[in-house]
Amino acid sequence: MTTEQRRILVIGIGAGDPDHLTLGAVKAIRRADVFFVVGKGQDKSALTDLRHRMLEEHAQAPYRVVEVRDPSRDRRPMDRSDYASAVQDWRTRRGDIFERLMREEMSAGETGAFLVWGDPSLYDSTLGILNDIEERGSVSATVEVIPGITSVSTLAARHRIPVNQVGRPLHITPARRLGDVGQNDDGDIVVMLDAHESFTQVEGDDVWIYWGAYLGTPDELLVAGPLGEVADRIRHLRAEARARHGWIMDTYLLRIAKSPDE
Amino acid sequence: MTTEQRRILVIGIGAGDPDHLTLGAVKAIRRADVFFVVGKGQDKSALTDLRHRMLEEHAQAPYRVVEVRDPSRDRRPMDRSDYASAVQDWRTRRGDIFERLMREEMSAGETGAFLVWGDPSLYDSTLGILNDIEERGSVSATVEVIPGITSVSTLAARHRIPVNQVGRPLHITPARRLGDVGQNDDGDIVVMLDAHESFTQVEGDDVWIYWGAYLGTPDELLVAGPLGEVADRIRHLRAEARARHGWIMDTYLLRIAKSPDE
Repeated sequence: MTTEQRRILVIGIGAGDPDHLTLGAVKAIRRADVFFVVGKGQDKSALTDLRHRMLEEHAQAPYRVVEVRDPSRDRRPMDRSDYASAVQDWRTRRGDIFERLMREEMSAGETGAFLVWGDPSLYDSTLGILNDIEERGSVSATVEVIPGITSVSTLAARHRIPVNQVGRPLHITPARRLGDVGQNDDGDIVVMLDAHESFTQVEGDDVWIYWGAYLGTPDELLVAGPLGEVADRIRHLRAEARARHGWIMDTYLLRIAKSPDE
Repeated sequence: MTTEQRRILVIGIGAGDPDHLTLGAVKAIRRADVFFVVGKGQDKSALTDLRHRMLEEHAQAPYRVVEVRDPSRDRRPMDRSDYASAVQDWRTRRGDIFERLMREEMSAGETGAFLVWGDPSLYDSTLGILNDIEERGSVSATVEVIPGITSVSTLAARHRIPVNQVGRPLHITPARRLGDVGQNDDGDIVVMLDAHESFTQVEGDDVWIYWGAYLGTPDELLVAGPLGEVADRIRHLRAEARARHGWIMDTYLLRIAKSPDE
């Protein structure tokens, strides 16, 4: 009987700039025997390519790369409980894939690594899925997390702004919950995962937007200004870039210039 | 007449673990001629030492280090408008110091660097102060921001948890605003800058806390559990560690296990 554990590294690799890898991420990449690269299909192959280039530069030979296709997810507009069950269904199928990878593609005593965009703690499912697998009890592994540069920090760095105003809160939200968040305080709002240009629904002369797409990559786009003045420009840029690349990943900060007290 | 600009690098160096430096931060450190190290006084000298060790390892000789003492700030409990003016007063004095550093401690064409704990975009005043200086117009510089690993990402990595629940918002707030934030939705809350153990004021059987102090350092402390069960333990650990080190820096996530819908 072996007591040697499988070891899983969940490595945050930043939002797109290879220089956003931390020294700890590089060391972790050098420790791994096998890398699990979860692809989104052809449309985002640029992102998969970037991970391969990181491995070529930093991984320690011999190493193995196992590519799997992410299960598709129902992305039609839906209400909150349907959304939760669509995500849960997708997570279960993703968990089946991860479990198979851990059982069939690595041996006890080996170290496997998932390379995660941005930071594994922020709007990424890998940690939750590994937790589900641990609860299933069918394959056991120790998990270590290496934090990464978030797209939020990258957006702020490229605009050279703080994401919070002095002494005020910051809200980070999926676009579908934008209507619920920050209505009762003077905090700024970062919107993630916005497939439907929710910023066009926001009203107010005192709202500024700091928008970025393909952050950290050579294709990066940045726009900042009063929302009413720049919203159309962002919509045109988004449409044009999406057509050119086949996909878009963007995020933005909404800042209420005026405090509710004023 | 020279058109050579001063260049200022604002470099996020992570929350305390030298391995959280990014490859980009290392490259930026190698480009700087002079480093401005803003100290908090004797009590946090361990943090200043860590920055010096990072420079010894990564900076390119010859380089200069200029240490300055942070202006003291009025930290008595006060209401929101007094707090804003106390912070503004402190920022103005800090701005005077930074302006003097940029004018007297570096020449046109040189590159100066501020090393910022965590990420420069999150609850750090450096970018705001540099913006104030630009508005004063007395010294001109180009500013470049290198994002860093936040204490939020570090807390989550060490606890191996996501900071958000699936599809829900995340709130990040200074402790003094905890009462205003996230009361009307099902988001998790990260509390920063808590000098008064505000978690002891939070009620509810369904609240979990993930707490960490001295994150990323050899002195790191971690506690997780139902708030009602672990709050006393955290209070004792805090008091004991604060007495031993002379200072404490901690942060925590509050998670409402139950959705308001349920």
